[in-house]
Amino acid sequence: MNYRLDIEYDGTRYEGWQRQKRTENTIQGKIEEVLSRMIGEEIEIDGAGRTDAGVHARGQVAHVHMDTEKTCQEICSYLNHYLPEDIEIRNVTQVDERFHSRLLAKEKTYQYRIGTGEHKNVFERKYLYPLHEELCGDRMREAAEKLEGTHDFKSFCTNKKMKKSTVRTIYEIKIEEYPGEITITFTGNGFLYNMVRILTGTLIEVGRGERDPKEMEAILLAKDRTRAGFTAPARGLTLLNIKY
Amino acid sequence: MNYRLDIEYDGTRYEGWQRQKRTENTIQGKIEEVLSRMIGEEIEIDGAGRTDAGVHARGQVAHVHMDTEKTCQEICSYLNHYLPEDIEIRNVTQVDERFHSRLLAKEKTYQYRIGTGEHKNVFERKYLYPLHEELCGDRMREAAEKLEGTHDFKSFCTNKKMKKSTVRTIYEIKIEEYPGEITITFTGNGFLYNMVRILTGTLIEVGRGERDPKEMEAILLAKDRTRAGFTAPARGLTLLNIKY
Repeated sequence: MNYRLDIEYDGTRYEGWQRQKRTENTIQGKIEEVLSRMIGEEIEIDGAGRTDAGVHARGQVAHVHMDTEKTCQEICSYLNHYLPEDIEIRNVTQVDERFHSRLLAKEKTYQYRIGTGEHKNVFERKYLYPLHEELCGDRMREAAEKLEGTHDFKSFCTNKKMKKSTVRTIYEIKIEEYPGEITITFTGNGFLYNMVRILTGTLIEVGRGERDPKEMEAILLAKDRTRAGFTAPARGLTLLNIKY
Repeated sequence: MNYRLDIEYDGTRYEGWQRQKRTENTIQGKIEEVLSRMIGEEIEIDGAGRTDAGVHARGQVAHVHMDTEKTCQEICSYLNHYLPEDIEIRNVTQVDERFHSRLLAKEKTYQYRIGTGEHKNVFERKYLYPLHEELCGDRMREAAEKLEGTHDFKSFCTNKKMKKSTVRTIYEIKIEEYPGEITITFTGNGFLYNMVRILTGTLIEVGRGERDPKEMEAILLAKDRTRAGFTAPARGLTLLNIKY
């Protein structure tokens, strides 16, 4: 049987989503550990968004093929009982055998939160990047518009050995200003390695006045990582939602 | 000169507000350490609410007598620069020499957050008590009304050796229900040691149906700690506000 897991986590303590050989401290690893114990054999799951170390999720989706007599509700309760308090399974549903969380994802939404005021944000500190600088939202919106659409985002990708296509479509980059905070919400058909964080770093440089919004076209055309801005820190980033 | 400090903190990592001999890991201790470095001599501050280990604050107030050439804004920036990221000085103001944060406090507001649903609350987990049980808000409100007003709250106080008066006035106990959460907000002229947490534990027992709301009068009259409910855990409690 094929099950879909909807997952929420605070990524602060983890080495990211994806299971790795050198460390067991990943979200995927933690969930597989509990599922394997439940089923009595080694279970592997597949997640839609391979979030980096320190990145959070409110709407991660994974799927897992396994055989069990347990109901979806029972699987969910079992997982939540044994998982640490910073990982929660929000929902378990039985899905079509062909459902694949990563390959069939049509749209992903990531949100990046930037603290712009002097305020330390004691209670939100793990979920936003404490920049403590004023940013110009209008300049950022102008630049963001130029990044929307279908482009080769090679300049916004860390992985130099990327052999697969680096063309992606961004449906929307929404920039919202709050007192002491700017939030950037990215919706697209997929994102390259570190792409959201590099887009964010570039937009921050625009918001500071260090870059012109018009530069975006040239950066895209250059297909050169060194032309884009810095990689914004992981802590400000949350995977919000995935659509199929 | 006398300065008022408005302070916010995440109490998770600390042994409470008050400086202690056996540990340096208190909020007061951390602030005094930075102030002493700034002034070049040992500085002591006095806080309005002596919050327990694990209790948080959004509106703690302290005062400190010290001599400095620095402006209030400079003192505030210095403190925030050297304090850890879970303690923030929201404001520094010069006040009358006679201002005393604790002795002149007229009204304090504490809020207790209880997670009632199955939801783990990954992002709020350090700031609410994960009870995961449904509670009856109406029963809790009926009991809360009987606790409002001026009473001897000896039954709701941990300290047996309390020689001073245990009479306090609670102006309001507000119970608000949200999806998966119940919030209890206590406003009064002062609270005894552990009083808010024992009031909360007792109200939880009422909300579960284990106690009758009408019992409150008898518990107050008994002046006996063993008659009241359990002490709710520190993590759910936040000192919200102090009025002078």
